[in-house]
Amino acid sequence: MIVLFTDFGLHGPYTGQMKAVLHPMVPDVPVVDLFADAPIGNPRVSAYLLAAYAVWFPAGTVFLCVVDPGVGGARPPLIVEADRRWYVGPGNGLFEVVQRRAAQASRWDIDWRPEHLSASFHGRDLFAPIAARLARGDPPPGRPRTDDADRRPDWPDELDEIVYVDHFGNAMTGLRAAALPSDAMLAVAGRTLARARTFSDLPPAAAFWYENSNGLAEIAVNQGRADRDLGLWIGMPVEIVA
Amino acid sequence: MIVLFTDFGLHGPYTGQMKAVLHPMVPDVPVVDLFADAPIGNPRVSAYLLAAYAVWFPAGTVFLCVVDPGVGGARPPLIVEADRRWYVGPGNGLFEVVQRRAAQASRWDIDWRPEHLSASFHGRDLFAPIAARLARGDPPPGRPRTDDADRRPDWPDELDEIVYVDHFGNAMTGLRAAALPSDAMLAVAGRTLARARTFSDLPPAAAFWYENSNGLAEIAVNQGRADRDLGLWIGMPVEIVA
Amino acid sequence: MIVLFTDFGLHGPYTGQMKAVLHPMVPDVPVVDLFADAPIGNPRVSAYLLAAYAVWFPAGTVFLCVVDPGVGGARPPLIVEADRRWYVGPGNGLFEVVQRRAAQASRWDIDWRPEHLSASFHGRDLFAPIAARLARGDPPPGRPRTDDADRRPDWPDELDEIVYVDHFGNAMTGLRAAALPSDAMLAVAGRTLARARTFSDLPPAAAFWYENSNGLAEIAVNQGRADRDLGLWIGMPVEIVA
Repeated sequence: MIVLFTDFGLHGPYTGQMKAVLHPMVPDVPVVDLFADAPIGNPRVSAYLLAAYAVWFPAGTVFLCVVDPGVGGARPPLIVEADRRWYVGPGNGLFEVVQRRAAQASRWDIDWRPEHLSASFHGRDLFAPIAARLARGDPPPGRPRTDDADRRPDWPDELDEIVYVDHFGNAMTGLRAAALPSDAMLAVAGRTLARARTFSDLPPAAAFWYENSNGLAEIAVNQGRADRDLGLWIGMPVEIVA
Repeated sequence: MIVLFTDFGLHGPYTGQMKAVLHPMVPDVPVVDLFADAPIGNPRVSAYLLAAYAVWFPAGTVFLCVVDPGVGGARPPLIVEADRRWYVGPGNGLFEVVQRRAAQASRWDIDWRPEHLSASFHGRDLFAPIAARLARGDPPPGRPRTDDADRRPDWPDELDEIVYVDHFGNAMTGLRAAALPSDAMLAVAGRTLARARTFSDLPPAAAFWYENSNGLAEIAVNQGRADRDLGLWIGMPVEIVA
Repeated sequence: MIVLFTDFGLHGPYTGQMKAVLHPMVPDVPVVDLFADAPIGNPRVSAYLLAAYAVWFPAGTVFLCVVDPGVGGARPPLIVEADRRWYVGPGNGLFEVVQRRAAQASRWDIDWRPEHLSASFHGRDLFAPIAARLARGDPPPGRPRTDDADRRPDWPDELDEIVYVDHFGNAMTGLRAAALPSDAMLAVAGRTLARARTFSDLPPAAAFWYENSNGLAEIAVNQGRADRDLGLWIGMPVEIVA
């Protein structure tokens, strides 16, 4: 399976053109849109979102990932293998958290270049063909990386910020619920929120946090929209109140 | 064919994770997004939308449906067979209209439980695997339902409300055009609208209603947006003026 | 490969219903969403967008295209073959630029009619079945066109307007960069913008134009949104300052 994780959107041409590269190369491999609305141009918060969702997928999955404010710039094109899942994309920190949490991780520079490489769409021209080759079982077409230009050792293990707002207005944090004390409260936007098991445990309009279905601490309002009702946005700090 | 009818959105992780469950289980079965923007948390109006669109699909289609304000709560997980189409989802009324209009309908409680069932994402963990099993021809993994906790006998046969606003701003009602007098007018938001055959029969900016391509009475403005131009929203009452 | 180019959106029922027609007819042919957010009801600017993106696809690709303000009206349903790519959709000018730029182009009226043809959804009922037949190698089911009701000879070869705003807020023009002097500036919304190679060549918040990955002159703001920061919209005029 090839899984797409990008800030490209689905309606416009970018996701479609990547799929038009993938399908003829690996006609029998399903291509799944996981996130097409990762935080735009923000590989730092995207790295925590990707790490939380990637571990749900089986070994052998290939993640084609593009969140890249420096498109056309000098960040290295990268392949990562972490706990038997593959990641292809820009070496701008996007795979930092995946690697740090993995029991085993390896990195390769991508040596291969396509006949035509546009300056602004490496997702289509460079990363998609590599993802297809990995999905059909080819070895990584590159050399093991020897410097750490793609790593971000200064980023924290858990990110105390909002990293994503979903279709319902729920706000995911970069904190894994399992890393928090079981009775921790989360303070955000002037409110202090207690933990609940799930939505139906609370009255309508109640704000709370809970462990979402991929393990992140997520802020929600029962039958409301947390983003609007509490005034939340991506990058907003969240404080753990133990 | 497996058809998705949800309020999950497409950009975020929910639709993609359901497809990541479906594809490996039934690699040769196409999965089609019908609605990913069903009215959020509103199974009542969604039930009329689903019923109008489901009948267009061939016998054997499996509808994987999630519109579920009580996620994590006590509503029964449900399988419905109605006129040889299958429906899987929460027993919160979402399948009320489909069943009521069917010549033949049966219901099963879902007995099967996955190894890991999250509190908040039954679409991925419970309903998607069941939909895949039905799509490959397995019998329903459950027992015939014996109570009516999932039924809503008090809901009307036709719903005189706006149930959906499409990408063009057209507002679908829960009324089937065939159930209305041929010269019926529809009163909505202080306006009374006559029927037209289609857009091109009217001058630009004219407001009207017509029978849409799935049989619903739909309110539109030629070369305009009915939602914005008339001030319409989901749940707004519509009155039939005969 | 069948490629969709529409103003239908993805979330609602229209794209899904077209795919539900296509998949059973040609189960082994991938269907790719290229644009689902073409300029609504505007075949003129859409024609330049389509022409720029279609040439990236291989020979044999079938484009199923619907941008159709006159739905239900008298414009002829059309098949075009241009440089070994197929186009199916309304004869309202949408294929004008594709044909004009092609070395070889032919046109057919669509004679075939489905058993049930809705007044408002020819994409599903008429154009999708034709696209599937072309994708499986059938000859065009119609007669060569003998009048020019579908052509728009008065439209320019390059369109000096904004034709699309993407997920990042970048504004594509209807001008091909290769048709402009290499040192051309573009004047838009009271600003005059110089050319750059790509985003990373400029400081944050700088506005510029560049040749995008499909050859169009595109207006962007590094790490910003050109649509919001400069006040741009589809149809806004752009002036070439040589």
